[in-house]
Amino acid sequence: MTELSTLHPVAGVTLGAAQAGIKYAQRHDLLIIGIDEGACVSGVFTQNAFCAAPVTLGREHLALGNTRYLIVNSGNANACTGAQGLADAYASCEAVAALGGCEAWQVIPFSTGVIGEFLPLNKITAALPQAFAELNAHHWPLAARTIMTTDTRPKGASEQFTLEGETITVTGIAKGAGMIRPNMATMLAYIATDAVVAQPVLDDIVKRAADKSFNRISIDGDTSTNDACILIATGRAGLPMLTQCHGPAYDSLLACVIRVMQSLAQAIVRDGEGATKFIRLHIEGGANTAECLQVAYAIAHSPLVKTALYASDPNWGRIVAAIGYAGIKGLDASAIKVWLDNTLIVEKGSRAKTYTEEAGAAVVQQAEFTIRVDLGRGNAQEQLWTCDLSHEYVTINADYRS
Amino acid sequence: MTELSTLHPVAGVTLGAAQAGIKYAQRHDLLIIGIDEGACVSGVFTQNAFCAAPVTLGREHLALGNTRYLIVNSGNANACTGAQGLADAYASCEAVAALGGCEAWQVIPFSTGVIGEFLPLNKITAALPQAFAELNAHHWPLAARTIMTTDTRPKGASEQFTLEGETITVTGIAKGAGMIRPNMATMLAYIATDAVVAQPVLDDIVKRAADKSFNRISIDGDTSTNDACILIATGRAGLPMLTQCHGPAYDSLLACVIRVMQSLAQAIVRDGEGATKFIRLHIEGGANTAECLQVAYAIAHSPLVKTALYASDPNWGRIVAAIGYAGIKGLDASAIKVWLDNTLIVEKGSRAKTYTEEAGAAVVQQAEFTIRVDLGRGNAQEQLWTCDLSHEYVTINADYRS
Repeated sequence: MTELSTLHPVAGVTLGAAQAGIKYAQRHDLLIIGIDEGACVSGVFTQNAFCAAPVTLGREHLALGNTRYLIVNSGNANACTGAQGLADAYASCEAVAALGGCEAWQVIPFSTGVIGEFLPLNKITAALPQAFAELNAHHWPLAARTIMTTDTRPKGASEQFTLEGETITVTGIAKGAGMIRPNMATMLAYIATDAVVAQPVLDDIVKRAADKSFNRISIDGDTSTNDACILIATGRAGLPMLTQCHGPAYDSLLACVIRVMQSLAQAIVRDGEGATKFIRLHIEGGANTAECLQVAYAIAHSPLVKTALYASDPNWGRIVAAIGYAGIKGLDASAIKVWLDNTLIVEKGSRAKTYTEEAGAAVVQQAEFTIRVDLGRGNAQEQLWTCDLSHEYVTINADYRS
Repeated sequence: MTELSTLHPVAGVTLGAAQAGIKYAQRHDLLIIGIDEGACVSGVFTQNAFCAAPVTLGREHLALGNTRYLIVNSGNANACTGAQGLADAYASCEAVAALGGCEAWQVIPFSTGVIGEFLPLNKITAALPQAFAELNAHHWPLAARTIMTTDTRPKGASEQFTLEGETITVTGIAKGAGMIRPNMATMLAYIATDAVVAQPVLDDIVKRAADKSFNRISIDGDTSTNDACILIATGRAGLPMLTQCHGPAYDSLLACVIRVMQSLAQAIVRDGEGATKFIRLHIEGGANTAECLQVAYAIAHSPLVKTALYASDPNWGRIVAAIGYAGIKGLDASAIKVWLDNTLIVEKGSRAKTYTEEAGAAVVQQAEFTIRVDLGRGNAQEQLWTCDLSHEYVTINADYRS
């Protein structure tokens, strides 16, 4: 994760925040992101059937193009709020449009926080002028703090690379610590670049990059109602427009966006509710990527594996049990190998002859390590990032909202 | 759950236990169940691809018929132990056969406990004579205690009903508190009846009854490597043999076996690791039973739902989020209704107008309650029993084995 102080501004993007007092006093909880005319915006949203009002409305507004503002509040998710929720989300867009001099459909709304309570619209409209007054290209760190809920740390990432002699910037922020098993994107991530990108190419890049980053993390297996990941291309770099989904310029930009998104996604896992360990799952030797992911999610969602790792216990029996119930048809247990970092722990259906508990314990007592599984069925591979399950997780989620 | 003192003996079945010192000293951990000649035995086993050595061997022995003994040890699962594990399991069958005067293939082995360690065969064979000396028709309560691992309470259930003027008994015991999301059966359950049942009919009954009981519970979503559920019909009742899977006698016996198995299955959930609440999930209005179960498991496995219920917090937003990500294609959020016991909490995609937090809180602070969901898509319905996720769960599973 990039230090917040080194988040490079992106020409064509400004950010402003205010204290609306939505859930807590004395903290920034309302964010406006201004996007200069001529930019291209793309995004992916949660697949949860109970998607929140701002997700429903945001999808519609995004499809119309010419987006000029994003409005984001923390403290209230405006989810499961029915027709009233949709009306509130639209009213917040109208309020932004009135101050920003555009139409309501050029504003995309986002909310994160408690599910099932109506948006305090008056508080939001009252604080909006302050957020507009703060609009500034250097406010990425403030924006990262504004969108936090149970996060303990703001999350930002920024990179620059050179394309045909021009310096291209990719900068992003994200939030999220619980209800994290994104299915298309995670609530909430905003990434901007000054690259010049046509809409269909940007749509392609945001999908591919989200699939390699936010869609490859899981904290608790709970897919949120509000997930959204937005990629803005302001087009301020003095370069011809990227109009094809191949070629060196496309490859360079995609790679940079993936790196920034992976950095943000991993920052979310590192800040997972109650997390004390960051665990990379690397599944290889699958017949296809789908079964690699099945195994990865089975391990990542096993409370028994997660509590053992919390205790720094190399309880490989629980890992192989999870592999065994992942639902892979015709899985041959005797062909599977499992490593903790580079320590082989399982082969031929039982503990590796060379394995010692001491070697396993040395790996899992680290703050970061890799569980690698070779399924011995083919050449597909996948990665997933997850964390352990601690007392603190139970405390946070038993106390939150109470 | 029946009081252990009232477990009715089943003519043709004897039980004996001993202290083998497999994991802990000073407790019974080795059980022998003797089955008189002429009985019929059926069973279902885990679908985990990493199934334990005794499961692999047990399936083979069961298929040969004429089973005379079951041998069960707690403290060691003999799972993920490769060829050595299979040899150990077979050697334990040979030891039983030598003492019992039968062939090794007439003995079915079962193990439960730590995964990945070799069976202490010497301790088992040394304790076997004592277990044989104890064989007695009244030892069901001792047997229930012998097979416990992290269980805090022994689990037994017993019922009698009248069939064509004869009293028929169905008695069973079970163990299990963690790694519980059975897929065919749960480790370990033994149910016996003196009914006279042909093998194909008994096979049918055990599958149907396990599907309505052990396959409808989940504590942590982790399917064990050692699950097994055995149904014995000794045929001692003076009645004609049951040879068809329909008719009043079949219906009465199936219903009684289901009641006994449900009692045992629910006892496992009530004794779930760290569980403080027993939760019935009733999903109705599904297009088919599969999607009802999808929704039920999504709710049952959500750590966010489970920790909220632990805190007696009627956090219905987390429940609807879980329904939303259960993966039902074309789910219409506005058609869904959710109740806590008889309190309607969600309708038309948002909080019910009549709902108050006080009413929801009154339900979830009970030790037992029902979450009912109407999907509004059809007439299918399913039930699942689960529990909450507490600090104690983390403590138990972070400390176990360490």
